[in-house]
Amino acid sequence: MGVSYKNLDTLAAFARLKGLGRTDELLTEERIRSAQIPAGSGLSYNYAAKLWTGETLGVLQELADEAELIPKYRALLDGEVMNTGEARMVLHQLARGQLGRDVIHGGKNLRVFYEGEFGRIKDFAEKVHGGELRGSTGKVFETVVQIGIGGSDLGPRALYLALRNFCAGGGSGPGSGQGQRLEARFISNVDPDDASDVLAGINPETSLFIIVSKSGTTQETLTNEAFVRRALSSSRGAALAPEKHIIAVTSQASPMAKSSSYLAAFFMDDFIGGRYSATSAVGAAVLTLAFGAGVVEELLGGAAQTDRLSLESSVEKNAALLDALLGVYERNVLGFPSTAILPYSQALSRFPAHLQQLDMESNGKSVNRFGEPVSYATGPLVFGEPGTNGQHSFYQLLHQGTDIIPLQFVGFRASQRGEDLEFEGSSSQKKLCANLAAQIVAFARGKKDSNPNKSFSGGRPSSLLWAERLTPAVLGSLLAHFENKVMFQGFLWNINSFDQEGVQLGKILTTQLLGGKAGDKELSVYAGLLGAG
Amino acid sequence: MGVSYKNLDTLAAFARLKGLGRTDELLTEERIRSAQIPAGSGLSYNYAAKLWTGETLGVLQELADEAELIPKYRALLDGEVMNTGEARMVLHQLARGQLGRDVIHGGKNLRVFYEGEFGRIKDFAEKVHGGELRGSTGKVFETVVQIGIGGSDLGPRALYLALRNFCAGGGSGPGSGQGQRLEARFISNVDPDDASDVLAGINPETSLFIIVSKSGTTQETLTNEAFVRRALSSSRGAALAPEKHIIAVTSQASPMAKSSSYLAAFFMDDFIGGRYSATSAVGAAVLTLAFGAGVVEELLGGAAQTDRLSLESSVEKNAALLDALLGVYERNVLGFPSTAILPYSQALSRFPAHLQQLDMESNGKSVNRFGEPVSYATGPLVFGEPGTNGQHSFYQLLHQGTDIIPLQFVGFRASQRGEDLEFEGSSSQKKLCANLAAQIVAFARGKKDSNPNKSFSGGRPSSLLWAERLTPAVLGSLLAHFENKVMFQGFLWNINSFDQEGVQLGKILTTQLLGGKAGDKELSVYAGLLGAG
Repeated sequence: MGVSYKNLDTLAAFARLKGLGRTDELLTEERIRSAQIPAGSGLSYNYAAKLWTGETLGVLQELADEAELIPKYRALLDGEVMNTGEARMVLHQLARGQLGRDVIHGGKNLRVFYEGEFGRIKDFAEKVHGGELRGSTGKVFETVVQIGIGGSDLGPRALYLALRNFCAGGGSGPGSGQGQRLEARFISNVDPDDASDVLAGINPETSLFIIVSKSGTTQETLTNEAFVRRALSSSRGAALAPEKHIIAVTSQASPMAKSSSYLAAFFMDDFIGGRYSATSAVGAAVLTLAFGAGVVEELLGGAAQTDRLSLESSVEKNAALLDALLGVYERNVLGFPSTAILPYSQALSRFPAHLQQLDMESNGKSVNRFGEPVSYATGPLVFGEPGTNGQHSFYQLLHQGTDIIPLQFVGFRASQRGEDLEFEGSSSQKKLCANLAAQIVAFARGKKDSNPNKSFSGGRPSSLLWAERLTPAVLGSLLAHFENKVMFQGFLWNINSFDQEGVQLGKILTTQLLGGKAGDKELSVYAGLLGAG
Repeated sequence: MGVSYKNLDTLAAFARLKGLGRTDELLTEERIRSAQIPAGSGLSYNYAAKLWTGETLGVLQELADEAELIPKYRALLDGEVMNTGEARMVLHQLARGQLGRDVIHGGKNLRVFYEGEFGRIKDFAEKVHGGELRGSTGKVFETVVQIGIGGSDLGPRALYLALRNFCAGGGSGPGSGQGQRLEARFISNVDPDDASDVLAGINPETSLFIIVSKSGTTQETLTNEAFVRRALSSSRGAALAPEKHIIAVTSQASPMAKSSSYLAAFFMDDFIGGRYSATSAVGAAVLTLAFGAGVVEELLGGAAQTDRLSLESSVEKNAALLDALLGVYERNVLGFPSTAILPYSQALSRFPAHLQQLDMESNGKSVNRFGEPVSYATGPLVFGEPGTNGQHSFYQLLHQGTDIIPLQFVGFRASQRGEDLEFEGSSSQKKLCANLAAQIVAFARGKKDSNPNKSFSGGRPSSLLWAERLTPAVLGSLLAHFENKVMFQGFLWNINSFDQEGVQLGKILTTQLLGGKAGDKELSVYAGLLGAG
């Protein structure tokens, strides 16, 4: 039985939600203990400090049911064409687990295909780690450099930074304490200083480069590939053979797929969008080379566990679903236009930048999946920096600014490296977590003061995703939580979260300018100012 | 003659501005050529793609005059107590040039004091660079590690990253092509993985640490200082003498000022707020050690030049003033709640994070300078990432999302390192700038398409700050432009942009928790979840 796609403002439950207006939170001990849902492998979602009452949750359940959020997720898993604009399936979850029917395309079982690519990456990485595959002067590889932009950069980079200290640390679990197999670096920007700077900091003789572009036509990535090839060929007199130092991650239909100028090529396909590709070959290649296959398997396993939990139809048992619904309540009923991501973990320093892409590129749309303009707000602005750093920066506005910004805190009980110091009665890790606990309470409760400059209105909602330690599995769950939240919100707004037509116009004008086509006077004047005329 | 401080919504010119409502832009060749103002040393501010007509500019001039923006700036320069909440003067501009009267405090000429500290830093750095001052095992220093948080981290870090490639590059001007004197690293977060990770990547024997805290009581910084002291004492059996490896930047009243446990101490004072301290000793120490005094002098000179230009009373001749006024028009008349900072320069990767602090901590306030609640929106949310990277990420929402977000582009005609590649008919630098030009036009003009999913509404305002190359002087101007913009906006909103009471409540609750005080049940439950109970 098919599901039906309706605009948010046509749903009876949404009208009821609007009727509720703002419900004040009441942060009690009991509520903090009970308002919590498992969100994946060791990850918990605590929503005590969000704005809701029992009545709110009831209406959100009605909304989830009326919008058929779980049936839509099931349809996606079963291979329905959810990316309507581009007539494509959406299969990033399939690359990390089978939760729906077999998905067959062109006679190919796609889960087998995705797993097969991961297997090929694993074999390749083993040969690199074992010294069987070496650079063109016979030296073992020590560095891997990912060249990609957008989804081929932000997700893999954020995950790499998130796990680097885990692998250096002394805990348990695959990868922990083993150190890194290869150090990773990233080149993304077409700004020549980016490639030039990274190349100046590595030894090309011991470096392996990964060119990542699904289409094989991304301007920045091809340009940086050429930049790197030139550097390798002329490398400090070593005259390296570029084809022994470069691999490709691309789609099988791309011009890169069958080129003999790569040492190897690994594949994804059109059913995994760039911003959802961190758990496909796009992320797996660099992460497996950096940390080994065991770490990546844990990461995929954690994501798959969250994907399963996201199938729960009860909003009080499904963290991603409830997070999505509360976000729509904040956006479309309470009118809050942005969301902050605040991880209390230096390892997650670039995770907000990845979520910014994930969310804003998916749901920053003004037309519904049928191409009709919607008359309500869709995706919010998403931004963030790690705590406690942010406390000494933009938190001033979060606490006392004129707009309310909902907050997503992330925290862990233990550090990754395990090195700590008792100072003035507490460890650094305890100080970090005490700050986090204090912030949640401060935002929720506020504080009256006779000096209005020292008063805090409170009632500023937040939720907390937390775990014992940031392991690969927890990281996979964290990633999938946000991916699934964004998916559910896209369903609620009745938009296509899986295309990105908004990036096209700039590309067209750039191509026109670089191709030397005359006629666009305004463009020419700006280009003249900037020396690109 | 004194100036008068009135709320924005009591000004006649603001009522006229509201009456104008939204004026559509008309992006013409002529307008792009003429709507441009010098903004400092080689820096230009182009506002052609903002929403305004000649009438708008006229009313903005009236608003600037009625709000007495330039007289207030002059009063600030002359040492009036502008930080009313804390009863302090605001003197960051004085640290880089004399534009008002002599400012004497406690019998001390403060400009002489600030310049004297820079002179002491210069002498100290020369001894380090010359090998006269060495680590406790006699090795020359190769690395400088700044330990600070908030204003003691974000600004200095952003400026360091912005100039690293300039010093490596082959252009002209002080510092260009000289390479770095010392490589810099930064420790900020109380997360123990931050200090542990940085320490694992350096050689303590050849490292010099700078502890930066104005009060000398910042929890994170003192904790990380203790972390580093332990590491030095026990350093791989080398048993280094910490007091030979650590210097302090603090105020003369702080407990750090007279401690014999530092090799040297350099001073700022209460009249330079953390987020405005990048051009004081806070930024000068690490930047001088990294790049030499010549580079820092250029930086200060660029900032001073912008400070002078900011005294112009005509809005069409004062870039910071006009930028501030257009921002208030966007925030308070058009209702846009956020602003994106989009530098087309990988060197400026952390500059948006610094501006986020500068703006949101300064103007995220709900009460005016007299402590009375204001009934209009104040400081916007500020965020950003470098282009072209952002184009493959959140630009989707900027182009086609349901909210309009004003954009601040930054671009340079030439790269810093000077290494480039011709590929498919253009250099990387030209591709970078062509993308930037194309984005400005795409946002302004939009594009109709019969497929609504491929339609762009346009009318999304942006401005462009640009220069030939990102030199130290240009960087100083860029920094001062934003500082002065934020100052003028604070005057318009009639708030105190120089305190940060909003950060206090979290600190109090954290101290309470770590001090083991019972009684706050909700705080205890959260602390228990996070292992900080």
